[in-house]
Amino acid sequence: MTDERAGLREVSRRAGVRRVAELAGVSPATVSRALREGTPVSADTRERVRRAAVSVGYPLPARTLTVAVLARLPTRWFFAEAVAGVEAVLSAGGHLTQLHNVGDPASRRHFFDTLPVRGRVDGLILVASALDDAERSALDELDLPVTVVGGDMPGRPRVGVDDRAGARAAVRHLAGLGHREIALVSFDPYEACGRTTARDRRAGWADALAESGAAPGPVVEVGADVTAGDTAAGRLLSLPRLPTAVFAMSDEAAIGVARTLRRAGVEVPGRVSVVGFDDHEMAAVADLTTVAQPVRRQGELAARALLATVAGDTPADVELPTRLVVRGTTAPPR
Amino acid sequence: MTDERAGLREVSRRAGVRRVAELAGVSPATVSRALREGTPVSADTRERVRRAAVSVGYPLPARTLTVAVLARLPTRWFFAEAVAGVEAVLSAGGHLTQLHNVGDPASRRHFFDTLPVRGRVDGLILVASALDDAERSALDELDLPVTVVGGDMPGRPRVGVDDRAGARAAVRHLAGLGHREIALVSFDPYEACGRTTARDRRAGWADALAESGAAPGPVVEVGADVTAGDTAAGRLLSLPRLPTAVFAMSDEAAIGVARTLRRAGVEVPGRVSVVGFDDHEMAAVADLTTVAQPVRRQGELAARALLATVAGDTPADVELPTRLVVRGTTAPPR
Repeated sequence: MTDERAGLREVSRRAGVRRVAELAGVSPATVSRALREGTPVSADTRERVRRAAVSVGYPLPARTLTVAVLARLPTRWFFAEAVAGVEAVLSAGGHLTQLHNVGDPASRRHFFDTLPVRGRVDGLILVASALDDAERSALDELDLPVTVVGGDMPGRPRVGVDDRAGARAAVRHLAGLGHREIALVSFDPYEACGRTTARDRRAGWADALAESGAAPGPVVEVGADVTAGDTAAGRLLSLPRLPTAVFAMSDEAAIGVARTLRRAGVEVPGRVSVVGFDDHEMAAVADLTTVAQPVRRQGELAARALLATVAGDTPADVELPTRLVVRGTTAPPR
Repeated sequence: MTDERAGLREVSRRAGVRRVAELAGVSPATVSRALREGTPVSADTRERVRRAAVSVGYPLPARTLTVAVLARLPTRWFFAEAVAGVEAVLSAGGHLTQLHNVGDPASRRHFFDTLPVRGRVDGLILVASALDDAERSALDELDLPVTVVGGDMPGRPRVGVDDRAGARAAVRHLAGLGHREIALVSFDPYEACGRTTARDRRAGWADALAESGAAPGPVVEVGADVTAGDTAAGRLLSLPRLPTAVFAMSDEAAIGVARTLRRAGVEVPGRVSVVGFDDHEMAAVADLTTVAQPVRRQGELAARALLATVAGDTPADVELPTRLVVRGTTAPPR
């Protein structure tokens, strides 16, 4: 009885494969191969077969995808949140998340020299990293679907926020309070992680200065973490005249700036106002005025965009809104 | 010429395979299969063949391992640091890191119901998660090498700190300042992540109280993040008498406790001293007295222990020292 049923199922399966094969213009054997994972079939043929299977109602096998996430480890809040969002969507769909650190130059070089994802993943999500031409070519050669969270990669779907508008809102808030000397504490523009973001947030800072008629304040290019903020505060304190306000490109840096200014006896916000970017968990604790962005959500949407790309769709870019959160580190200049 | 050389190489290879086969007591075909990844050979046979290959000097193929990391996503600093340490060691060795979130009950159930690692990874690293019996059996059935960072799993190599000694040092510091009412802000003991750690840190708190002759203060079981600390402070404020000191099991919780106490007009450390555990990046910013532990290092050593286990060794447990860091949130009671 069981054997008979199994026999009938097999007959029905073969008929289905033949229908798919006719429609796709390939042999039945190719259909079987194309619908299995890890078999040597061209991407083009596999795609044609999958589409034919869908159109004749032949069931596609459930497929576990492995997706590589390139991020900056370990501790910047942004990356942990974004990776968590990616993992949540992938695991809910039965897919696997492979993690690669490209945060420091050595790890980054190691990744692009060895390309450990080659032949091992079905797609790649790039978190907040601008790639140079050689790195971009390397990824292009892998011929994989890629989506980008924060940052930018021409021709690939992107999920992010309007960094320029977010920065503009922060600096407008300072200008609106009456500040006319607004310093910029920037990511390191030579560091690949965050290069695009640094450019856009700097443009937003300049926009708001131009609108308000304020002169561009000093620019300190340091990095994104608390220590970078400490360094930036030291540099600002060494200037002939301390600006009355600082816009930092990350909350960690803003928190470092405020801490070091206060340790040096400079009141925040009494003497210097400070604004960050992110709405890090610790921003509320530090009572920091900041530009909030939904980071976990960006990771989730990037994972969805990647799955859509693997399924043959072309997802549109997504730009999520930012929101100015006014707290206790900003006040009118004295 | 090239063909001739290739022919010679093939003759030499076959002779090597025959030697390995004789020593391992299997057929040459089994040797070839056992030395390839992803082939259906029992773990036992594969191991025997690999040992035989090593002893006759037959080159083992370079092998890319995939290691699953079970962690709590997204943002607790501990997990981001530990995962970064694991990834650093694995990627340097040419291996791959697969990330799974088991932090919230739904993700955890999803992982253990579907076991997406089955047949797909060569080992597993469990970060700060105590497993229940069913979960442990599920992992045992997978028959994979497992190492544990923080927390505990009987019979598996563990890398961690002496949580009990660390907590004892923190509470001794408070008792030494003269505190006699020392509250404990604990992880949620019903939450699987950190269950073992919660037990050990609580024991260390009790040890130090007993030594100093202080009465056990109130225990608030809330969780590990900043919001949990806020909640804990609220509960402490609702007591008939506020204790003069608080030991919190994480820096995030300690930072939340201190923030909420201060917002309620309670001076820290003037009226209440607060100590955390971790030495989170933000502990220095918050000027928090804490117990420092080397988290990234724990991740690195867990990855090394896992690679050693895969290679057939039995690595010893590693216990790294903690260190009390006295900052500005502790002072003698008024």
